[in-house]
Amino acid sequence: MWDTLWVNANLATMIPGGAPYGAIQRGAVAAKDGKIAWVGYAADLPGHAVDLAREVRRCENAWITPGLVDCHTHLVFGGDRAREFEMRLQGKSYEEIARASGGIVSTVAATRAASREDLVASAAKRLAGLTREGVTTVEIKSGYGLDLETEIKMLEAAKALETYALEPSPPLWGRGQGEGARAAPDRLNAPHPPAPAPQGGGGEAHIRVKRTFLGLHALPPEFRDDRAAYVQLVADGMIPAIAAAGLADAVDAFCENIGFTAEEVDYVFSAACANGLQVKLHAEQISNQNGAALAARYNALSADHLEYLADAGIHAMVHAGTVAVLLPGAFYFLREKQLPPIDKLRAAGVHMAVASDCNPGTSPMTSPLAALNMACTLFRLTPEEALAGITREGARALGMLDDVGTLEVGKVCDLAVWDVNAPAELSYWLGAPLLKERVFGGRVV
Amino acid sequence: MWDTLWVNANLATMIPGGAPYGAIQRGAVAAKDGKIAWVGYAADLPGHAVDLAREVRRCENAWITPGLVDCHTHLVFGGDRAREFEMRLQGKSYEEIARASGGIVSTVAATRAASREDLVASAAKRLAGLTREGVTTVEIKSGYGLDLETEIKMLEAAKALETYALEPSPPLWGRGQGEGARAAPDRLNAPHPPAPAPQGGGGEAHIRVKRTFLGLHALPPEFRDDRAAYVQLVADGMIPAIAAAGLADAVDAFCENIGFTAEEVDYVFSAACANGLQVKLHAEQISNQNGAALAARYNALSADHLEYLADAGIHAMVHAGTVAVLLPGAFYFLREKQLPPIDKLRAAGVHMAVASDCNPGTSPMTSPLAALNMACTLFRLTPEEALAGITREGARALGMLDDVGTLEVGKVCDLAVWDVNAPAELSYWLGAPLLKERVFGGRVV
Repeated sequence: MWDTLWVNANLATMIPGGAPYGAIQRGAVAAKDGKIAWVGYAADLPGHAVDLAREVRRCENAWITPGLVDCHTHLVFGGDRAREFEMRLQGKSYEEIARASGGIVSTVAATRAASREDLVASAAKRLAGLTREGVTTVEIKSGYGLDLETEIKMLEAAKALETYALEPSPPLWGRGQGEGARAAPDRLNAPHPPAPAPQGGGGEAHIRVKRTFLGLHALPPEFRDDRAAYVQLVADGMIPAIAAAGLADAVDAFCENIGFTAEEVDYVFSAACANGLQVKLHAEQISNQNGAALAARYNALSADHLEYLADAGIHAMVHAGTVAVLLPGAFYFLREKQLPPIDKLRAAGVHMAVASDCNPGTSPMTSPLAALNMACTLFRLTPEEALAGITREGARALGMLDDVGTLEVGKVCDLAVWDVNAPAELSYWLGAPLLKERVFGGRVV
Repeated sequence: MWDTLWVNANLATMIPGGAPYGAIQRGAVAAKDGKIAWVGYAADLPGHAVDLAREVRRCENAWITPGLVDCHTHLVFGGDRAREFEMRLQGKSYEEIARASGGIVSTVAATRAASREDLVASAAKRLAGLTREGVTTVEIKSGYGLDLETEIKMLEAAKALETYALEPSPPLWGRGQGEGARAAPDRLNAPHPPAPAPQGGGGEAHIRVKRTFLGLHALPPEFRDDRAAYVQLVADGMIPAIAAAGLADAVDAFCENIGFTAEEVDYVFSAACANGLQVKLHAEQISNQNGAALAARYNALSADHLEYLADAGIHAMVHAGTVAVLLPGAFYFLREKQLPPIDKLRAAGVHMAVASDCNPGTSPMTSPLAALNMACTLFRLTPEEALAGITREGARALGMLDDVGTLEVGKVCDLAVWDVNAPAELSYWLGAPLLKERVFGGRVV
């Protein structure tokens, strides 16, 4: 007997090669012990629904997709950059903004100053933006510490999010106060709200987190005059420590004229490789540094951004099976004009993922559905490509395709149930509350 | 004694001329009989909080703004255009899309076919996207009926939204079924969900709706060969009937080379004027038709879109006090390159509102905060201008500035309470769940 069976549903299995979206209309999916135990047409169920599962959930013709996989975020950081955003729009000069501590340096300072608990609490609010739109797996990068202690604090905070319990939203923080409080009218006369759920690690898991060490994100201020020493510290000091402690699943870097050179990245990737960590790369975002080709040489999981990717990089990615992670949020916020070579990537058969890139500087966006809409509206992906990008291909970009990303028997039962008539609506609407239910490891969460 | 007092809050009163955002840090606001009874610094409260109000709500340093005013939407319509969105991205030709019934004609057909109840129910889901981000006043246009019966049905549906009660979201539609159901595990073993709230008009008011008759939206298929007859029907048949029945507060039109000529709009505006209705206009969205100047001649409430607005139009708007309603959502979805002349509007002192333009064809966006973000990111408004645009200036564009749009004693107590450290965050984040509480007429809703 199954634990739970969803019926009266349409399934976007995202299994390639068949119907668009791998669709199964009038389908059903069953969970047992946290995994998908059955997927198919409801008519093919081996008996009456109520005899097959302890719980039967009738979905009113909703569409069920795999839980979304957001494979590129910087969700953990201290502070925010709203003041810098405002100053820039007020026409303040670069110098004025720098004097007011703008830029990534301000995020590094705020992240170093924050406690691990503060980092978890602020990231949890952003994570709530992702989960309320169906995300069940998220990648989170470090890279605002730029010293070992703070990088570890960030990676630990990312892990703690897996079981962090947010207060119910909107919080019930209002009530009559103290002896002077008088009878409240109507619905305001409710009893005091229940105590908030235990904070900071006491709850049940509700999200899968993959962690990436991004030491080569920016040059920390204290190494301003010695780049080589910082690169060496990352490669020979931080990576071995982080790998030994099991704090990260992969190593990332920012290969760019305002970031790190291909040679510096190469040095750090060698260390990642030697320490058994896979790699991925911020590549060709604002110029072509041949980063994608470098990443491909290390059989990188993914090369991300890619607005300035050239043909050689595409060929290298095809050969290595490196996923192209498209980040239209950063493209939008930076008002970039150069589009990634989508048609060439498609023609070459490069797998394309889509992610939120949530970060305080260039993509303060906590909406996977906005990323889908931008992938279509700005990058001209089809809605099917966009949805595959944030399910199947997101999973591939994290090396998790055996476990998540499609609706297949044996994978974990992470589902998103949507109040839509067709899966294209997930890309079409912007800002609409479409999620009916999120399922994590077979549990409705 | 006040009914409710909000303390431990920061206020963005949006009253111009003083501090940015009209800010009052460590402020308080009180409601009595649905109106704002007191606004100011908490230190100036005339006594202890608990002695002043039946209920005291402590806001943990949240920011309180006026409830948002979305002054330009097409929220009521039948169907959606996700299929057309998808076909276009699949590279289908204009003819293929037209054969598959794309375009506004498809929305007109679906709207005519829908019952009033269907229109209310589908619009209510979109409205939920607006209200979960703090909207308390919304303008809704007709214009997908293009015959009197359907236009009236749309305007009645818009009115019905004021008291329509949505099911709780996400709906609790799953449970063990029938005699065969067995004990459900854990949290799934909850009692059956409560019956949904009464639908379709039985609930309390939770949104203010202003209604606009948009007969000159498109030429209906049955008048394809007789434009003049349709314009005459709108002016001499529909407007008098709608005005007599009190179904609309204003008349709008689409003045464009793919819409109606300035002469046609002029004729219809004369009828609006004669029937005591104010006017507003979709003007200069994709070409300069001198629509804004025409609107200004009728002392229009607003001229909307304005990407191709020229100097003469700006001067006319200044003279008439016509508000410029900026709609960055449509700009984004259409990938328009021509920006509205923001600097010139600002320099001329034209009031600028910002709205969602929610509609199925060119702005399927149900997020006022996304409109703020786009107003800043794409149109380069400051966060303060953007927030004023969706509060004070939105109210001005609807002729409601005496009642809503700022935090001032005597206005209705419509509030949005936000989990942010600074009001600029409302424009900075995209897709984040920032609203803590929405207050409508003094009630937490």
